[in-house]
Amino acid sequence: MLEALKEEVWRANRRLVESGLVVLTWGNASGFDPGSGLVAIKPSGVDYDVMAPQDMVVVDLDGRVVEGTLNPSSDTPTHLEFYRNFQGVRGAVHTHSVEATAWAQACREIPCYGTTHADQFHGPVPVTRYLTAEEVAEAYELNTGRVIAELFRDKDPLAQPGVLVAGHAPFTWGKNPMKAVENAIALEAMARMARLTEAVRMSEPVPPLPDYILEKHYQRKHGPNAYYGQKK
Amino acid sequence: MLEALKEEVWRANRRLVESGLVVLTWGNASGFDPGSGLVAIKPSGVDYDVMAPQDMVVVDLDGRVVEGTLNPSSDTPTHLEFYRNFQGVRGAVHTHSVEATAWAQACREIPCYGTTHADQFHGPVPVTRYLTAEEVAEAYELNTGRVIAELFRDKDPLAQPGVLVAGHAPFTWGKNPMKAVENAIALEAMARMARLTEAVRMSEPVPPLPDYILEKHYQRKHGPNAYYGQKK
Amino acid sequence: MLEALKEEVWRANRRLVESGLVVLTWGNASGFDPGSGLVAIKPSGVDYDVMAPQDMVVVDLDGRVVEGTLNPSSDTPTHLEFYRNFQGVRGAVHTHSVEATAWAQACREIPCYGTTHADQFHGPVPVTRYLTAEEVAEAYELNTGRVIAELFRDKDPLAQPGVLVAGHAPFTWGKNPMKAVENAIALEAMARMARLTEAVRMSEPVPPLPDYILEKHYQRKHGPNAYYGQKK
Amino acid sequence: MLEALKEEVWRANRRLVESGLVVLTWGNASGFDPGSGLVAIKPSGVDYDVMAPQDMVVVDLDGRVVEGTLNPSSDTPTHLEFYRNFQGVRGAVHTHSVEATAWAQACREIPCYGTTHADQFHGPVPVTRYLTAEEVAEAYELNTGRVIAELFRDKDPLAQPGVLVAGHAPFTWGKNPMKAVENAIALEAMARMARLTEAVRMSEPVPPLPDYILEKHYQRKHGPNAYYGQKK
Repeated sequence: MLEALKEEVWRANRRLVESGLVVLTWGNASGFDPGSGLVAIKPSGVDYDVMAPQDMVVVDLDGRVVEGTLNPSSDTPTHLEFYRNFQGVRGAVHTHSVEATAWAQACREIPCYGTTHADQFHGPVPVTRYLTAEEVAEAYELNTGRVIAELFRDKDPLAQPGVLVAGHAPFTWGKNPMKAVENAIALEAMARMARLTEAVRMSEPVPPLPDYILEKHYQRKHGPNAYYGQKK
Repeated sequence: MLEALKEEVWRANRRLVESGLVVLTWGNASGFDPGSGLVAIKPSGVDYDVMAPQDMVVVDLDGRVVEGTLNPSSDTPTHLEFYRNFQGVRGAVHTHSVEATAWAQACREIPCYGTTHADQFHGPVPVTRYLTAEEVAEAYELNTGRVIAELFRDKDPLAQPGVLVAGHAPFTWGKNPMKAVENAIALEAMARMARLTEAVRMSEPVPPLPDYILEKHYQRKHGPNAYYGQKK
Repeated sequence: MLEALKEEVWRANRRLVESGLVVLTWGNASGFDPGSGLVAIKPSGVDYDVMAPQDMVVVDLDGRVVEGTLNPSSDTPTHLEFYRNFQGVRGAVHTHSVEATAWAQACREIPCYGTTHADQFHGPVPVTRYLTAEEVAEAYELNTGRVIAELFRDKDPLAQPGVLVAGHAPFTWGKNPMKAVENAIALEAMARMARLTEAVRMSEPVPPLPDYILEKHYQRKHGPNAYYGQKK
Repeated sequence: MLEALKEEVWRANRRLVESGLVVLTWGNASGFDPGSGLVAIKPSGVDYDVMAPQDMVVVDLDGRVVEGTLNPSSDTPTHLEFYRNFQGVRGAVHTHSVEATAWAQACREIPCYGTTHADQFHGPVPVTRYLTAEEVAEAYELNTGRVIAELFRDKDPLAQPGVLVAGHAPFTWGKNPMKAVENAIALEAMARMARLTEAVRMSEPVPPLPDYILEKHYQRKHGPNAYYGQKK
């Protein structure tokens, strides 16, 4: 069942890995079919190399396995919370990509420092609060989804297609599984750019190259008597 | 028409991607043919993998599409401003490469800290001002080009073949499309080196390895009684 | 003898390199067979490209070569100390992977800043003291193992499957050679994330992108009059 | 003539590129044959992809081209100074590898912070002074070599097989061209590790992950009721 969706979810998981966002097996992508109310998701802890489309596990919105012999991702209850709450969202992704995870671990939202960010997210990338000890003790993964949904009560999830979970890592989503992957790729780039922007902004110029060396190097390559490279 | 130029522009776009400067579809290269006054440029938001030379869009210097069924890059009006203003420039590139973008987002010019920079750019890499709300509201991409051209009024564009747009990202150019790509590659390396130079310069030595460990490791590999590796 | 173990150790060494943790020949993996009490380990200073399973050297727990014509890794005495002391450990890995080595050189344990770390290590990654001049002078590699074993006297090595040696680099281990490699990969990611977490946490927001530019970029790509990309 | 040396030098240049140390054409390797007193070196500004062994240029120790139709690397006079002054050195390499160049641009020697460094270099990696305006004006590349030789007057070049030229970049050397390349690779890793060591050492711990989340994540994957992954 849902062969097209399983294929789509499998391809999304493959692209996650090819994009360098996933270390070992730390990542998963899912897709939602609103017609049937079913979700296809990556099996838990399975090597990407040996994973085939038919290994994707199909679950309903209550998390019951409808098709598949493998355990679904342990993060499945978090994904389901997105599909139950976020209008129009049909794909979701979780990674521990390094740069976004650093912001999540630092419990800081990612400010919008440039157009790269503004092209993808309509404002800062929000960060959740930590889950409480009670939320962790019972239904941890479900409560992770609830804390995210709580944060997005007044937001448009398609305009801000991602979040950082404090002390954990990013989740992204989109109109389909591949869009969710693209948002994960974009988020990682935005997170890195934001870190470097602060570093460059807070840093100060140090002594530059002496002018006579600058001049020498520029002229030996581009000046009228240039001698770098081969005769043209 | 302009098959050679379209091929050249296509190859420049491919090399951009192979150089790791482009995330998703965030980059574009164009080329200018002064004889006909026409420009070939990458189509907007198209995947690099499926793009062929004949997909390059041909526009005139006023931005009218002369050939091609796809939309040209949304940054086309910025590129055209270069060809209208910069004598001898026949190729232009836009990327959101991470290190150069960090400087653009920090609104800092890149100082010339070494010969790597001096080999490519005759002085610091300048940064524009932010566009005003008015400039953004009408003809945003054209005004991006104008703000750059304004900054280069007294500069030689071929001696300083690139710029950072505040809050946005770098643009580079050159005598042909491939040279513009090479300048984008060089700019990214220069931006990274400049950031690291400031970090290393402002940092201070911390306690070194104890001498007796240094000595042990050096001697076990290179000393008269070395026992690392295989007998020679 | 022990063909299966030698193959397993060889594969672990190959994966180390493919994972980007090894520069030149700076890394080695070994495996332990509790039945025979023997260990298979990479030969010293041999290129990974030309190394075959039968090149793995077999030694006993006292370090005597039992099979093989090449010298075993110079770090063999350190590996043996693990197998003699750590119940259930059957694989060990040593690398000079950059991020973990930076923490080792800074003589700092890696705090647990997030779930990526908590998924792999039950608490901070500890760092040893420096070896004394006496410990370096006699049986350096054995004493490296002893200093690690000393630090783990009250720890569960399988719950904290790795360590940083002060001024040196990381060692990891596990239930088999491939698990030890996976722990080395995880440790490198954790070390990088921890460094970036501190950097992001101690940094502060700088001026963000003006709102009117954020709005323009978001809307030109996603708004009702979007003109980025191709018509759908 | 010197076909074996030219092949060796060509292979060294290829490996430089494959090691990621070279951006565009910014790097070169040479080799010295003490019997004939001749040197084979990379031609200037030629693409690595199209370069063949027979393109290597042969020069004598005074820099006169003895064989070859291409211009030798513009850095040839620097290389020759090594072969004239450094006993036992038969290979030399110049790159603008990013991390080592950052230290050169910051005019700082690289302290020895760990055994990775001690395995390769017998002490800190020294940095030259800037060349004077006079030294730059006449025989710039030769004077670059002289400033290096001056710094090594009391050092053993084979025990400290590399240097940072202030405001410029690293040079390394060795017993043969491939050893010089390996020293360039090692130097880049050491430079990166040293930068990160200072960053980690000067940084301070920030709030860790709450214990109840650490415990939850560790136990859900490794505890008696683990539910991560597939049933074993």
